[in-house]
Amino acid sequence: MKSNAIPDIIISRLPLYLRSLQRMQEENRKVTSSQELGERLGISAAQIRKDLSQFGEFGKQGTGYKIDYLIEQLSKILQVDQEWDIVVVGAGDIGNAVARYRGFRNRGFKVKMIFDNDQSRVGTEIDAYIVKDSKNLISYIVDNNIKIAMIAVPASHAQEVANQLVEAGIKAILNYAPINITVPDGVFVQYIDPSIHLQRMTYYLD
Amino acid sequence: MKSNAIPDIIISRLPLYLRSLQRMQEENRKVTSSQELGERLGISAAQIRKDLSQFGEFGKQGTGYKIDYLIEQLSKILQVDQEWDIVVVGAGDIGNAVARYRGFRNRGFKVKMIFDNDQSRVGTEIDAYIVKDSKNLISYIVDNNIKIAMIAVPASHAQEVANQLVEAGIKAILNYAPINITVPDGVFVQYIDPSIHLQRMTYYLD
Repeated sequence: MKSNAIPDIIISRLPLYLRSLQRMQEENRKVTSSQELGERLGISAAQIRKDLSQFGEFGKQGTGYKIDYLIEQLSKILQVDQEWDIVVVGAGDIGNAVARYRGFRNRGFKVKMIFDNDQSRVGTEIDAYIVKDSKNLISYIVDNNIKIAMIAVPASHAQEVANQLVEAGIKAILNYAPINITVPDGVFVQYIDPSIHLQRMTYYLD
Repeated sequence: MKSNAIPDIIISRLPLYLRSLQRMQEENRKVTSSQELGERLGISAAQIRKDLSQFGEFGKQGTGYKIDYLIEQLSKILQVDQEWDIVVVGAGDIGNAVARYRGFRNRGFKVKMIFDNDQSRVGTEIDAYIVKDSKNLISYIVDNNIKIAMIAVPASHAQEVANQLVEAGIKAILNYAPINITVPDGVFVQYIDPSIHLQRMTYYLD
């Protein structure tokens, strides 16, 4: 992990800023302000200025931020000014949707290969991919020096897959299986579980 | 929104506790401790005890928590001791995966219907669903008194769909479109965007 002490909560907001800026860029906008960004994101302008000031001086009071420049800088900070290859493990409905997903374009990611241990899925086509046998997962990751993986297998297999990924040298895992997984220090995990998000909201419903 | 002042950060952890407890229940476990929960979740035992103490006395020092009872109580608190119907808007890859997803079972949710405005999708079958025309979205939500929706349409249409959902009385939206949406006070939004999660991790990679 980086040794500078920028809190993770700040890091967690940078991708949101980047996404909003890229949306503005698609709208052919050239300049924005912390006020406008804040309104789009539901974050205060002061918070945005404070977050960005951790990384340098990206705009001038009164003139706002140049969108292209701020995108370039945030992409560098988040290290998505390069394209990261990703392996997907699990070729079920979620693995399918992820492999076909167009939203990784221009965000710094590319699904490189999809694996499954079910022989009825191995060899089938998903978009431009041909599903590979999970028995080749570790060697594929090692040979291609891949650092990021997505787990889209049933909860009961998620830890076992995570162990293989870690053994192969994966450093960042996006886990779609609805279960917590344990990984060594230096490996990062993020979770996508729609029920968790929904339950956060039902608490507040009348 | 509820008027009691329990911080949202605490609420956000309750679904994680509930999920871990349900996993233990599936393993036929009867009792757990804040230590064990903490190890599974990467959260300190003290934090878990403090969070739970906001809602009552669920366990005794030394004897731990009864899993069935704590599940029942957390389910009540999060209001998932009932089953919430959900409408899905967008029958593309993500809408498909969500409609077929088995992970909502026992978590308090049921996909009730899926909508699309693409006439080539309307009438097609997804699992047990027949895709309905989005022109009937508002009346369907009103007639069935549905409070929760998922947006799985392209980013360019997400705000328009959100406006329709709000008009129809939806109070909680899970947005899979990679864009921020604006909703009135009293409507809750959560986001699922895998690129955002990935970018949170690439910052830390060597």
